[in-house]
Amino acid sequence: MSYTMIHSCLRVMDLEKSEQFYQAALGFEIVRRKDHPEHKFTLSYLRSPGSDFELELTWNHDQAEPYVLGNGYSHLAVGVADLEGSHKRHEEMGLAPKPLKGLPGQGVRFYFLEDPDGYLIEVVKV
Amino acid sequence: MSYTMIHSCLRVMDLEKSEQFYQAALGFEIVRRKDHPEHKFTLSYLRSPGSDFELELTWNHDQAEPYVLGNGYSHLAVGVADLEGSHKRHEEMGLAPKPLKGLPGQGVRFYFLEDPDGYLIEVVKV
Repeated sequence: MSYTMIHSCLRVMDLEKSEQFYQAALGFEIVRRKDHPEHKFTLSYLRSPGSDFELELTWNHDQAEPYVLGNGYSHLAVGVADLEGSHKRHEEMGLAPKPLKGLPGQGVRFYFLEDPDGYLIEVVKV
Repeated sequence: MSYTMIHSCLRVMDLEKSEQFYQAALGFEIVRRKDHPEHKFTLSYLRSPGSDFELELTWNHDQAEPYVLGNGYSHLAVGVADLEGSHKRHEEMGLAPKPLKGLPGQGVRFYFLEDPDGYLIEVVKV
């Protein structure tokens, strides 16, 4: 039996704010939205161009308290060719990316960024 | 600037147990392992056949307490053609999958499963 990873799902407090972040900061595209008013939630599916894997954002309409992020889930990683340029761009956008990092002797390889709910995103040089 | 989703990362308590689960239950393949003994952590990267997206499992060697999963991260979804067959298979493996579900009139479309740390996996009919 064959399984394929199709999406990762995060719960968010403000769907439009999150959609705008993933579009503006990471170039994701909204593929579709599914509204379920009877169950008071909306799902939004985003993709990075050229990939089938999706980020599913769940907005529970009645959620009042920020979600507890815990320490189990770590991050979603995205690859980019120009890591330093991306870091500068995210700084200029006011997104406060963490410092560029890398193993000794390898130069910079990645940095972290937070989305509007505080979920970590690892930006990796590819 | 172009970004591509490359992996989702979860912290796990027992790396071999998690690797075995994802291999046996979902047919994922271990692509590589990176051991960082100086920082006391090991990373394992798994793929579903035919897809570039990876699941990164982080094992922090000194982690004593179970991770706090919180309620922000929701799940990783995998697609499968034979949903009912998959559900039966996971039952027979003793993995206690949740009941098959679907919207009214659509028949069954998905079910949930827990990995060894309690992270949810949504198995979706594709």
